[in-house]
Amino acid sequence: MSLLVVGSIAFDCVRTPHGQGDNILGGAATYFSVAASCFAPVRVVAVVGEDFNEKHRRVFTSRGIDTAGLEQAAGKTFRWHGEYVGDMNEARTLDTQLNVFEQFAPKIPASYLDSEYVFLGNIDPLLQLHVRQQLPNARLVALDSMNYWIQGKLEELKKTLAVVHILIVNEGEARMLSGHPNLKRAALAIQVLGPRILVVKRGEHGVSLFTEGSVFSAPGYPLDEVRDPTGAGDTFAGGFMGHLARSGDVSEPNLRRAVIYGSVMASFAVEEFGLGRLLRLEPQEIEARFREFKNLTHFDA
Amino acid sequence: MSLLVVGSIAFDCVRTPHGQGDNILGGAATYFSVAASCFAPVRVVAVVGEDFNEKHRRVFTSRGIDTAGLEQAAGKTFRWHGEYVGDMNEARTLDTQLNVFEQFAPKIPASYLDSEYVFLGNIDPLLQLHVRQQLPNARLVALDSMNYWIQGKLEELKKTLAVVHILIVNEGEARMLSGHPNLKRAALAIQVLGPRILVVKRGEHGVSLFTEGSVFSAPGYPLDEVRDPTGAGDTFAGGFMGHLARSGDVSEPNLRRAVIYGSVMASFAVEEFGLGRLLRLEPQEIEARFREFKNLTHFDA
Repeated sequence: MSLLVVGSIAFDCVRTPHGQGDNILGGAATYFSVAASCFAPVRVVAVVGEDFNEKHRRVFTSRGIDTAGLEQAAGKTFRWHGEYVGDMNEARTLDTQLNVFEQFAPKIPASYLDSEYVFLGNIDPLLQLHVRQQLPNARLVALDSMNYWIQGKLEELKKTLAVVHILIVNEGEARMLSGHPNLKRAALAIQVLGPRILVVKRGEHGVSLFTEGSVFSAPGYPLDEVRDPTGAGDTFAGGFMGHLARSGDVSEPNLRRAVIYGSVMASFAVEEFGLGRLLRLEPQEIEARFREFKNLTHFDA
Repeated sequence: MSLLVVGSIAFDCVRTPHGQGDNILGGAATYFSVAASCFAPVRVVAVVGEDFNEKHRRVFTSRGIDTAGLEQAAGKTFRWHGEYVGDMNEARTLDTQLNVFEQFAPKIPASYLDSEYVFLGNIDPLLQLHVRQQLPNARLVALDSMNYWIQGKLEELKKTLAVVHILIVNEGEARMLSGHPNLKRAALAIQVLGPRILVVKRGEHGVSLFTEGSVFSAPGYPLDEVRDPTGAGDTFAGGFMGHLARSGDVSEPNLRRAVIYGSVMASFAVEEFGLGRLLRLEPQEIEARFREFKNLTHFDA
């Protein structure tokens, strides 16, 4: 089933203890689309500038990603410059140039209106709400947000949360949004706001899935080397939503598998700078790492 | 099979966002013994002062814990005063009075010399080595240490590490000891120092078990409320070593189960101040929470 994503496309400059990458094609919609396209047909809604060329577009089209919703505007593409230091768990932003992203007003092509699975990437909650309202028949809508919107547009974010099924945020954001330092209480408070399903990303420590009455905890994958964490969260979301769209099964046991597929994709993404590892990922590598996650967590009861 | 522990017994004053406890019976050997005694016969080696009375001793003896190695010295028992704030992941020490613990020279009673399972709690590595050398036939020796000894007595610690089977430390200590920010590389570097098995405590994020060629990741138990994290690490070690001593099985699959039993015990310990919850814990509660850990991590492959 088709999976729609709305979010940013960017050119990133990234510095980590393992090296540096300049003008890397990135952004939430990019990482999400590329990861999800390993599982299901993807439709992207985003804006790029005149510096986004045919080679960049082919990253999407060569993977069957529908770019009917990819708007090219006058000006430059969104640019982000950041670095990771120490344990690399958090990015430090050195520079942000919003460029064409500043005026982003997502337009949903008519051919996208039957999308059943929707990921509202981290943009202004009012824009997320606007997209959501154009897709009243979507079966499963997931939303990402961040501290910037929680602090600056809380009321708008709450309106949007009221009409989505899943919230995907990191640990600190879940605590900030709910006002609870305890994660279990934070989850309950967030479920009251609308999303019945909460996915909490805990970086190298893995992911927690809170559904009504159950909690699932997935570990981080123990990598020898994390070269570039950029896009890990959106790659996770791409694998997570991609598996759900592929299977058409939103039961709790399948949500757990989706968390593992998301974790698998994120674990590959961080092995290299930018999209490098994801673009040459083979289906059997995904399945092999899925089984490794099983080995990583299994114990006999 | 008998399980010997050497470590501190203390009276703690603890402040957390949920309250305060004064002159609570605590210390590594106490939490370890009480937790382990739910699984196997425990023998304790520790020193207390004249303020340690019959009521305190009965906490041990009423649970069948052998106190032949409990030395009572002139002076006061070790006292620790600390607090936890915010996410409560780290204690802030407000005051430490070593008292009789300052001159602690562990003496192993003759009746303890056949102990097969040994836990060397967090004390001076030279004392740990001294104890280890008196128990040449021990089948499984685990050691706890901390940043204080890693920084101040690294060479002595390395000598001790060379003659133990298991190191149990927290994440930051594993990184500090190995010099590797990456946990998987840290584990490899530590295994080279001696212990073939590394247990890394990650606080609310759970525990990682590194054996030769395999990694196991156990989640933290999602509690509604952590009232007092004091002693959680030693309680974990008590459940972990207790299960191994009870089963006499040190295979990798059973080490995984031991990690879960340790996590179960720690999850109970933090529900209340001090030993409160552990002292009235029933075997069926331990088994029920063990099964909850299974539910928490299970997914269909």
